[in-house]
Amino acid sequence: MQTNILPLSMPNKTPTEFDSMDALIKAFNASRAHSVKLIEPLSPEDCQAQSMEDASPAKWHLAHVTWFYEVMVLKPFEDNFQYWNPAFAILFNSYYNGIGDKHPRHQRGLLTRPSLGEVLVWRNNINERVNLLLKKNHSQELQKLVEIGISHEQQHQELLLTDIQHLFFQNALLPIYSESQHVSAAPEYEFKWLEGASGLVNIGYSGEEFHFDNESPSHTAFNQTHSISNILVSNAEWDAFIEDGGYQDARWWLDAGWAWVKSESISAPLYWNLNSETQKYCQFSLKGNLPLNPQAPVCNVSYFEADAFARWASQRISHYAGARLPTEFEWEALSQVKPKLALNLFGEVWQWTSSSYSAYPGYQPWSGIAGEYNGKFMVNQMVLRGSSAYTTPGHSRNTYRNFFPAPTRWQMTGLRLAKDGI
Amino acid sequence: MQTNILPLSMPNKTPTEFDSMDALIKAFNASRAHSVKLIEPLSPEDCQAQSMEDASPAKWHLAHVTWFYEVMVLKPFEDNFQYWNPAFAILFNSYYNGIGDKHPRHQRGLLTRPSLGEVLVWRNNINERVNLLLKKNHSQELQKLVEIGISHEQQHQELLLTDIQHLFFQNALLPIYSESQHVSAAPEYEFKWLEGASGLVNIGYSGEEFHFDNESPSHTAFNQTHSISNILVSNAEWDAFIEDGGYQDARWWLDAGWAWVKSESISAPLYWNLNSETQKYCQFSLKGNLPLNPQAPVCNVSYFEADAFARWASQRISHYAGARLPTEFEWEALSQVKPKLALNLFGEVWQWTSSSYSAYPGYQPWSGIAGEYNGKFMVNQMVLRGSSAYTTPGHSRNTYRNFFPAPTRWQMTGLRLAKDGI
Amino acid sequence: MQTNILPLSMPNKTPTEFDSMDALIKAFNASRAHSVKLIEPLSPEDCQAQSMEDASPAKWHLAHVTWFYEVMVLKPFEDNFQYWNPAFAILFNSYYNGIGDKHPRHQRGLLTRPSLGEVLVWRNNINERVNLLLKKNHSQELQKLVEIGISHEQQHQELLLTDIQHLFFQNALLPIYSESQHVSAAPEYEFKWLEGASGLVNIGYSGEEFHFDNESPSHTAFNQTHSISNILVSNAEWDAFIEDGGYQDARWWLDAGWAWVKSESISAPLYWNLNSETQKYCQFSLKGNLPLNPQAPVCNVSYFEADAFARWASQRISHYAGARLPTEFEWEALSQVKPKLALNLFGEVWQWTSSSYSAYPGYQPWSGIAGEYNGKFMVNQMVLRGSSAYTTPGHSRNTYRNFFPAPTRWQMTGLRLAKDGI
Amino acid sequence: MQTNILPLSMPNKTPTEFDSMDALIKAFNASRAHSVKLIEPLSPEDCQAQSMEDASPAKWHLAHVTWFYEVMVLKPFEDNFQYWNPAFAILFNSYYNGIGDKHPRHQRGLLTRPSLGEVLVWRNNINERVNLLLKKNHSQELQKLVEIGISHEQQHQELLLTDIQHLFFQNALLPIYSESQHVSAAPEYEFKWLEGASGLVNIGYSGEEFHFDNESPSHTAFNQTHSISNILVSNAEWDAFIEDGGYQDARWWLDAGWAWVKSESISAPLYWNLNSETQKYCQFSLKGNLPLNPQAPVCNVSYFEADAFARWASQRISHYAGARLPTEFEWEALSQVKPKLALNLFGEVWQWTSSSYSAYPGYQPWSGIAGEYNGKFMVNQMVLRGSSAYTTPGHSRNTYRNFFPAPTRWQMTGLRLAKDGI
Repeated sequence: MQTNILPLSMPNKTPTEFDSMDALIKAFNASRAHSVKLIEPLSPEDCQAQSMEDASPAKWHLAHVTWFYEVMVLKPFEDNFQYWNPAFAILFNSYYNGIGDKHPRHQRGLLTRPSLGEVLVWRNNINERVNLLLKKNHSQELQKLVEIGISHEQQHQELLLTDIQHLFFQNALLPIYSESQHVSAAPEYEFKWLEGASGLVNIGYSGEEFHFDNESPSHTAFNQTHSISNILVSNAEWDAFIEDGGYQDARWWLDAGWAWVKSESISAPLYWNLNSETQKYCQFSLKGNLPLNPQAPVCNVSYFEADAFARWASQRISHYAGARLPTEFEWEALSQVKPKLALNLFGEVWQWTSSSYSAYPGYQPWSGIAGEYNGKFMVNQMVLRGSSAYTTPGHSRNTYRNFFPAPTRWQMTGLRLAKDGI
Repeated sequence: MQTNILPLSMPNKTPTEFDSMDALIKAFNASRAHSVKLIEPLSPEDCQAQSMEDASPAKWHLAHVTWFYEVMVLKPFEDNFQYWNPAFAILFNSYYNGIGDKHPRHQRGLLTRPSLGEVLVWRNNINERVNLLLKKNHSQELQKLVEIGISHEQQHQELLLTDIQHLFFQNALLPIYSESQHVSAAPEYEFKWLEGASGLVNIGYSGEEFHFDNESPSHTAFNQTHSISNILVSNAEWDAFIEDGGYQDARWWLDAGWAWVKSESISAPLYWNLNSETQKYCQFSLKGNLPLNPQAPVCNVSYFEADAFARWASQRISHYAGARLPTEFEWEALSQVKPKLALNLFGEVWQWTSSSYSAYPGYQPWSGIAGEYNGKFMVNQMVLRGSSAYTTPGHSRNTYRNFFPAPTRWQMTGLRLAKDGI
Repeated sequence: MQTNILPLSMPNKTPTEFDSMDALIKAFNASRAHSVKLIEPLSPEDCQAQSMEDASPAKWHLAHVTWFYEVMVLKPFEDNFQYWNPAFAILFNSYYNGIGDKHPRHQRGLLTRPSLGEVLVWRNNINERVNLLLKKNHSQELQKLVEIGISHEQQHQELLLTDIQHLFFQNALLPIYSESQHVSAAPEYEFKWLEGASGLVNIGYSGEEFHFDNESPSHTAFNQTHSISNILVSNAEWDAFIEDGGYQDARWWLDAGWAWVKSESISAPLYWNLNSETQKYCQFSLKGNLPLNPQAPVCNVSYFEADAFARWASQRISHYAGARLPTEFEWEALSQVKPKLALNLFGEVWQWTSSSYSAYPGYQPWSGIAGEYNGKFMVNQMVLRGSSAYTTPGHSRNTYRNFFPAPTRWQMTGLRLAKDGI
Repeated sequence: MQTNILPLSMPNKTPTEFDSMDALIKAFNASRAHSVKLIEPLSPEDCQAQSMEDASPAKWHLAHVTWFYEVMVLKPFEDNFQYWNPAFAILFNSYYNGIGDKHPRHQRGLLTRPSLGEVLVWRNNINERVNLLLKKNHSQELQKLVEIGISHEQQHQELLLTDIQHLFFQNALLPIYSESQHVSAAPEYEFKWLEGASGLVNIGYSGEEFHFDNESPSHTAFNQTHSISNILVSNAEWDAFIEDGGYQDARWWLDAGWAWVKSESISAPLYWNLNSETQKYCQFSLKGNLPLNPQAPVCNVSYFEADAFARWASQRISHYAGARLPTEFEWEALSQVKPKLALNLFGEVWQWTSSSYSAYPGYQPWSGIAGEYNGKFMVNQMVLRGSSAYTTPGHSRNTYRNFFPAPTRWQMTGLRLAKDGI
């Protein structure tokens, strides 16, 4: 991901700014095509399976984002609307309690019908009808819903990749999704503490373009004096934590984190696995199982692990003395002021913050059923900022708030450290 | 297996009687082809999914029975044996603890690689090699293992069907496997009690052909004086049990059965479902969801339900006064003496007996790893006798012992009643 | 019960044979006093706690057996019956589904009210009223119910002891219940195979005195030719099984047993614990934690363990070649014929048999709510024969059928071996 | 609870300010005596039982706070220290991972030894030794540890009461702890919105006396413009929520809250129960089961319920339009400025805030093992402010931060509402 997508250093135009309906139609079609491109390396069977309740089958992702357009866009706006298949409204609903029955989340892998082929036919039908609709109807409300639909599909594009990676890791064959995936470059700069923006800061999205409800309203917050690292924590640093017995030492861990380490027998990031011959770590990814790259940012660690690492580094690594995770406001302020000094804010790994996911002052969920999108998850989740190598380009921004529960680690999650004072 | 114990509909010759190697080869190839025929109505996705831990994906069944031939037949007997893919020996092992690692049973639906197509290619390769081997090597030991392999694959053919039915039932679309499945005919005869064979009886397989280790040795047992029903319990009779509040009345149930009814909210046989308009029961099957046929044998009931029904019928249905489930020895003695009077001993539903599955006196498991086949399951399972509409023709016999835990009901399980005295 | 089936140490007269009402009253009072004597070494707190769902607090045992007399004896027979406290009928009911609400089984340890003192007062009140009743009413029906009540209380006396032992084992202080408990004597005789009674044998209770419904009717059964050990398996023999890796070798175990060993991390009988200094086993009992006595019968092993031991001994111990567990009918036939040669049939440990617990031919449960006593547990339980050191003297007989699920081992459970042939 | 314990309206001296060692000794002895007074209405059995994993037996509370003094105070400071009983250091440790083995939390109710009497003897011994020590040793460090010990015991005094209430509620007898418990008075004032303190505010403890590490450091925070209710939400208001179907309507609930309502079948605050005759709610408390007092503050609601109620009230109760839970900083600012207008800040119910429990900027856990006290719980917990009717007088302050997971409701938890703007 390039720095030119950031506010300040962002171009005047983001992919979600549309001067005309033509641009919106183009973005819609590009987004729809991108999802189908993502499954090119996959078989119908690959698209069928669900590896755990948190993940979904690729076919389900393709169908669910289509369901969104059918129910949220076509149903209210299309003349003589008819369901392609009314049963799909149950099968591919996700969490919208307001829309009636849903297929049980942990049983999405059992929906062998419709087949992948039938889902793709359905997708095409919906695509055509949305194109027709957008040519006839230029209402603000419709545009807003399609913009949500595009961002929604982009979120599922990232989930599709993380879910396939998790699925393939369950198979002793350790299949390769694609050889040509992103390679994390070694950082070009040495570690240094950057002075954080302190005092009153402006937080949240204040522009005119599309953004999620949880990024607004823009408001004032107060940052303490602090410093923040210019680089992400690396695999090599994490290996030192392991070598020092970090996963066996209760003192570094939150109480709930320690219980999790014990009950789940956690001893390394999710996709790390010891080569039985070399006794060195490999890391499984969409490119297959490869030797660990020490310079790459550490990835697939939970909040519990990120927090424990910070506590350990604070006491064991001299240049990290006093280290802790940043708050989400410290991260956002950094992104406003020093994006050129801070490396890999975007495009490598989502970065855990110490902030619980909660409503901004004056927060209003979107009206209607889209109101279930964000607000109802505001408990027991931690905020992540930035974006990852799997994030669809153009999807994230510096006000974007990703969030997951503390034990989550099948997402592309890493960290950068901060500390009090300068 | 003796011809006089077969239902009239059975051929004089079963596939497991082999006068020559040619016949064995023919039976092997027929058995292999039958499995592939069973998946004709299925898509790769249908063959991928696993609906619960007890069930397996169709693709897994196809692969596992192939694994059996590769590891049990080719590996010890073929010159210059090489695995088609050594990882498959882990992926498609089932319960053979003696052969090392296994893929976790509840995660068989996650094996999207190899694809269905690749499994079929592997099957063909193994088929060719087994054919070659059987032409060169006529040893008794090899023949015995291939006979086991054929019976083993037949068992998985039935499981494949029951597992697909269970999978499809999880989908609100209620897919149809095939319109042309078996239809249960209405019974031709009226109910009557048949006098059971009492006193000393011969139990177990005593012939020369293939049979499972758990059917032997042939031995003497003692039957009390008893009677046994000529017909199976029907859907109409079961409906009367439901109407009389049978599922809400603790007095009919074993203690463990009552706990199961409560915890699983059981109120009818597995695939019965109330039509929301007519308020009448439909029954889901491989033919789809059809109105319940009152004359057909009740199917998909657990041992707990069969036992409760017997207790209820014993007190509530005058002609069933004193009814109970038969022992497996009462059933076997009936099959020796009165197969023409006793209807549907085979080919409709497996019939629960009151006998726990245990070793016959002098029982010896097969030698080698095949010894894990039967003996190690001899606890907390109840014996079923006969065969079902899904059983591959020629697979069962009157000494055949099927067995499942008391709550099991995704198999084709029904019952016939017996009583003390004549 | 016939005197010739008792071990030599048993009295000629058991408490359940009553020539007159006086004898019955005496037996009733003795039984009631015995329960109270058992709690003499215990504090109110000791009597309060419940260590697991299978066990009950000592106070609950004292109350439940009293509830039995109040509801089953006084309520139907006493003039102007009134409950001591109607709430007790809910709190101290156990499994009688026919009598309405019950306090949840796993929460018996939460009933801090009534106090132990109040329960003892209630006991005295019920005792006095039953005494009065028995002086006035000499009906057969009443006598039968009081006999059941006495046997019922005897069963809870044994449970009270096993439950206290289990409770005390959870406490790092390893409290001592009483120094003066039974000591298992070293066997006086050398091992030898006794020829079993084969062919048609008479099984079940055929006398006139009290017995449980599950011991009847007396009937004919058929025993194969077999031999049976004169002695119980000892701690020393079990230690050899452990030393030979018995708990780490899947081949000895039933499939369900192996899953149990793995999930519960089983590596020795329940109360065996390694002394951290000597690295030798101690055994916790009501006498405290003492060095293991190699000559004593092994105790507190599950059916799974007993079955695995037999399979191991059959192949690894020369004089046990071909060994297996006896059937319950083999055990009962032995007790009829050779009680002087067979040591420790009674009074040491209950002995696992290979027989599932099921109804005898023609079995009829007791009428009324007492019918729930035995019949409804006839699935997924294995039969044990004999009696243990904790069994109240006079309680058991050679037709007595104890039963527990295969993983159970907090009871005083051991084994003797048998084999086919002579 | 009296208003004179509040800051501003608080006296200059709180019970935890000690001008001299005499005052500290006096406070220590008062605190120790208070715990024993709390169990006066309880039997040894009442003090033994543990009703759920979150709760502890009263005896355990008495022992654990004593363990704290023995291990944290006497062990490092007393000459020739010896354990009263070394095993107690395992039995009565709670969450201090730094101190080695612990007895499993959910099995505290199984520790029938030592008896209540023995624990009280141990308490007296420790009391005497601490008194002696405090007379000889006047070090700051010792004083600090004893102050922690006093506050620690006060926390367990409140827990002891909530745990007994929960235990008694499991018993159909619904025992009464004491008739003379606190009665919530009807509020003297009408509802009105108070203008909240906005802009930069000072948060956290800044004085010289005892306080917990999580209340410091004192720091600047930024409050948005907001209003806050002068009164607590009442039972009558909650009843309106129930009547309006609040527990059956997903739209009011957080996603995790709705899942909790469904899985736990929640339909009213914890101790509310419908009288089967009047069909009106009663509320169980330490005074027994009494008719619900509509004017009393609602109590024993979870964060999920408090949040859902706020969302409902915001849309359904006109004077609560726009209502939400306050942040902990809004609450603390209110307590600094308007304690006379805001009723029941202390002494009725702990008040849920919308703030996740996290570290203040610059937070440092106490050094040594006491450092495990607070910091390691800073995830997945919500902050409560104020104090309850069960809180030991003098224990809380306006900077005090109580915290529990979102589903918790066996504590004395209620709420007051806030809204954006004035």
